[in-house]
Amino acid sequence: MSSVLKGIAASSGIAIAKAYRLVEPDLSFEQTKVEHADQEVQRFQDALQTSKNELEVIRDRARTELGEDKAQIFEAHLLVLSDPELISPIEDKINQEQVNAEAALKETADMFVTMFEQMDNEYMKERAADIRDVTKRVLSHLLGVKVLNPSMISEEVVVIAEDLTPSDTAQLNREFVKGFTTNIGGRTSHSAIMARSMEIPAVVGTKEATVTIENGDMVIVDGLNGEVHVNPTDELITQYEKKAADFADQKAEWAKLVDEKTVTADGRHVELAANIGTPGDLEGVTNNGGEAIGLYRTEFLYMGRTELPSEDEQFESYKAVLEGMKGKPVVVRTLDIGGDKELPYLNLPEEMNPFLGFRAIRLCLEETDLFRTQLRALLRASTYGNLKVMFPMISNLDEFRSAKSLLLEVKEELIQEGVEVSDSIEVGIMVEIPSTAVLADQFAKEVDFFSIGTNDLIQYTMAADRMNERVSYLYQPYNPAILRLIKMVIDASHKEGKWTGMCGEMAGDEIAIPILLGLGLDEFSMSATSILPARTQIKQLSDNKMKALAEHVLTLGTNDEVIEAVKKEINL
Amino acid sequence: MSSVLKGIAASSGIAIAKAYRLVEPDLSFEQTKVEHADQEVQRFQDALQTSKNELEVIRDRARTELGEDKAQIFEAHLLVLSDPELISPIEDKINQEQVNAEAALKETADMFVTMFEQMDNEYMKERAADIRDVTKRVLSHLLGVKVLNPSMISEEVVVIAEDLTPSDTAQLNREFVKGFTTNIGGRTSHSAIMARSMEIPAVVGTKEATVTIENGDMVIVDGLNGEVHVNPTDELITQYEKKAADFADQKAEWAKLVDEKTVTADGRHVELAANIGTPGDLEGVTNNGGEAIGLYRTEFLYMGRTELPSEDEQFESYKAVLEGMKGKPVVVRTLDIGGDKELPYLNLPEEMNPFLGFRAIRLCLEETDLFRTQLRALLRASTYGNLKVMFPMISNLDEFRSAKSLLLEVKEELIQEGVEVSDSIEVGIMVEIPSTAVLADQFAKEVDFFSIGTNDLIQYTMAADRMNERVSYLYQPYNPAILRLIKMVIDASHKEGKWTGMCGEMAGDEIAIPILLGLGLDEFSMSATSILPARTQIKQLSDNKMKALAEHVLTLGTNDEVIEAVKKEINL
Repeated sequence: MSSVLKGIAASSGIAIAKAYRLVEPDLSFEQTKVEHADQEVQRFQDALQTSKNELEVIRDRARTELGEDKAQIFEAHLLVLSDPELISPIEDKINQEQVNAEAALKETADMFVTMFEQMDNEYMKERAADIRDVTKRVLSHLLGVKVLNPSMISEEVVVIAEDLTPSDTAQLNREFVKGFTTNIGGRTSHSAIMARSMEIPAVVGTKEATVTIENGDMVIVDGLNGEVHVNPTDELITQYEKKAADFADQKAEWAKLVDEKTVTADGRHVELAANIGTPGDLEGVTNNGGEAIGLYRTEFLYMGRTELPSEDEQFESYKAVLEGMKGKPVVVRTLDIGGDKELPYLNLPEEMNPFLGFRAIRLCLEETDLFRTQLRALLRASTYGNLKVMFPMISNLDEFRSAKSLLLEVKEELIQEGVEVSDSIEVGIMVEIPSTAVLADQFAKEVDFFSIGTNDLIQYTMAADRMNERVSYLYQPYNPAILRLIKMVIDASHKEGKWTGMCGEMAGDEIAIPILLGLGLDEFSMSATSILPARTQIKQLSDNKMKALAEHVLTLGTNDEVIEAVKKEINL
Repeated sequence: MSSVLKGIAASSGIAIAKAYRLVEPDLSFEQTKVEHADQEVQRFQDALQTSKNELEVIRDRARTELGEDKAQIFEAHLLVLSDPELISPIEDKINQEQVNAEAALKETADMFVTMFEQMDNEYMKERAADIRDVTKRVLSHLLGVKVLNPSMISEEVVVIAEDLTPSDTAQLNREFVKGFTTNIGGRTSHSAIMARSMEIPAVVGTKEATVTIENGDMVIVDGLNGEVHVNPTDELITQYEKKAADFADQKAEWAKLVDEKTVTADGRHVELAANIGTPGDLEGVTNNGGEAIGLYRTEFLYMGRTELPSEDEQFESYKAVLEGMKGKPVVVRTLDIGGDKELPYLNLPEEMNPFLGFRAIRLCLEETDLFRTQLRALLRASTYGNLKVMFPMISNLDEFRSAKSLLLEVKEELIQEGVEVSDSIEVGIMVEIPSTAVLADQFAKEVDFFSIGTNDLIQYTMAADRMNERVSYLYQPYNPAILRLIKMVIDASHKEGKWTGMCGEMAGDEIAIPILLGLGLDEFSMSATSILPARTQIKQLSDNKMKALAEHVLTLGTNDEVIEAVKKEINL
């Protein structure tokens, strides 16, 4: 049966491939008494053996396809499965208490996990994670359900998930993932941002993708219109192949602008930059004609792993990006963790309102060891290109002053050690908290630049969680209140001879671009794939006319009134 | 052993009494097999009988001390305990499955609760709640732990709790509760607001009150300095009796201003109003010389119960407050539920960030039946006094327009029904979301007044959950960004000939009052007990000097710089 799901177009393009469900299997079970303990022990040993065989295959494939590093992870899992300290107590438990293998395994493994996690020792904490992973695998064999190995996807697929966390996407084999579709999320959710950075079509917020779509179903992801077709007719597939070809043509048209500057019809130059998450995203930036990196989200370095990245590891990443950009500006945002982005190994307490909680610079100013390591790595890399350092979630001047003085301390330390550090590093802040926008004139005296993070700025200014579907209608980028805050920031920076960029999703939005031009924004940073369409649009706009438009919309009352006024002006 | 805990002074005064721990007892147990089912059934029947005896005593005392209404609740519990439809299956289960009484009771009761809760019938849902309460009581007797009956406190106590929710406080017998102390919370948490409204001393955020303090310990709550003394020496008790007497003297001094107007040293009159939660708070308003009600929080009508209050019930409350204020202004805030204030019977989904979620006006504009009922009750009461209606959590003009047009629709409806409605009801909004403050000039054209809700405005503007201790240092009332938003609101209202009040905790704060005066605030609404100290302070301040002070602090950079400037100006 063919069917269609509606969602939010999160990343443009068309994908046609088989469905791969990235959904946690149900590993629940009841504890029961068994009559023949010996048979139950045998059942446990069989599941153990199947798991070992499976892991050996995965390890060998990982070694050839993903490298020795990834293979080591599975080698460690195999060691756990052969460890008598873990296996014997499970068998004893089955024999002595006559409980089923599932219960004996789970209870014993949980005990070890708890024990190891409480130790103040990184190595033991990693062992706890290994035991947890391995337990899942053996349990899945006992229960006869399939365990997921997203890193081992080896044919072209469309990933179907409830939501994709950054650590999920870190595990995916990018070569084979042709598209995403998720139940929840919006245009600014991480799954959406990730899809744009991977340049693959995505439709998010379909509500029921994981309910409707089975493994192996043929799926069309229409990232232009926000539709997902499940088991489409051959006719529809043909239509979509045509659409995909048209989209490729349009991309080819945009590509002609790849080496051009971004200049308005009446001659003002603005900078079109890209948001990236890893050095691997650089290729997309170059291919799409990015004039700078406006936002390098360093948190991905910290994700999908079990311990903090070392200074050297970070240094290599920052150096790769700086060198790759060949002297063009690279704005690196320091660690922005917390909120919807968790790092399990930091053991942060659960919060009632994580978006209003202990995250980003708040965490870095308390966990100064972690922060210093990042700053050292950044400063060491600074001589390889045009580095600008940016602090996230700044809400008051004291925070900026503390962060900057830490940076200067670390710089001094490096110089003492004889390490070369660039002398022309600009230090700026994200403006994503209303207090900072309102006080931008004070900040402008002390920072080198601003970058407006509209994703958060909008949600705080409207007091509406952008991930919460019940209030997502309040995520209003064109609300005149938001536009006025943006104006305050830009005006304040210009008054002090500084510049303002924007790295939220709004910077690449065709309704927002005319207003932002008119407000005087200097740098627009967006998903790499949005750069060429944005350049195409900006070349057709007159800076002077946009100034008048911006002035006009600031006097309007609502989001809808602004949209209407822009559409009228630019004939959309 | 005597000891002292430090916390946040949340409500002034001194309380000396025995500790009453309001902490949920641990009712967890293991399911076990029993050898002699008949003995286990007997154990169950004993626990049942003890529960019945206890409930009869409580019912009789409730009848004489709290009225027939409350007694009926316990009568219903007694009926449940005598219902063979519930009791027989439990006994059968013990006999047939040879499980312990705790497990048989819990499993059977849970089944009935689930069944009743799924029915679309208010009566059956209440039965589910009864069964849940009764199960807890019988379980506590089976396990030999004490069950809590906070409504039956009959001697003077200091309540010790992790936190006090509005529904906890609704159950307390106010006559005997002399003070509070809690582990968590700050000056603006509900437990703190409640303590001020009950005019009893409170210290919140002690972190470990429930760990350190045992039932019956002698406790001194020092709500002036934020200290809690546990089992103090006789000498310390004597000292504190003296302090309590001094505080009473100071209150007597303040009381001389009870009938005076609030006028600055150079002759500007401002209005000092009170925040209230129930008609029962009116006495405190009168005793403390309140010139108006600046905030009537109607959500308490909806709390600590199992179904929505009826239109008539609401009408009676609103009428009581309007009549009680004898023509003085009464600003009633429509239902502000959600966030940290839950109504279990509305079955709202869990949210990741409730403070940025589906609450207050957002909920009312979707659940229009609920909202219409409240508006009808309010309009019917409008002829009994000087009613002003205020909508909470307004973030954009569309919301205000929708809410106001619903109000007008309901008014028309009542007039059609021949009900008399006042013709001079002002309709205003809370300004507690940054977008609304920034766009105040647009709102000022359409609303009759503003009331700035600083508790929320500060937490959204700084993006810091005020209940989260890890970021509570970011709750900065004097941050110039906050002060600038307040100025925008006041200026916008005056330009259109409207007025602005403030009903957040800041309105009664001695550092904030000089600035707010200078910014031109028209009405200050606070805990009733803060009114006389505030009047005392304002009478000593010059409006003109405060204007200069306000102008100066708006140009400063940080919260601390503002505090310093104010202290210097007013010699604190």
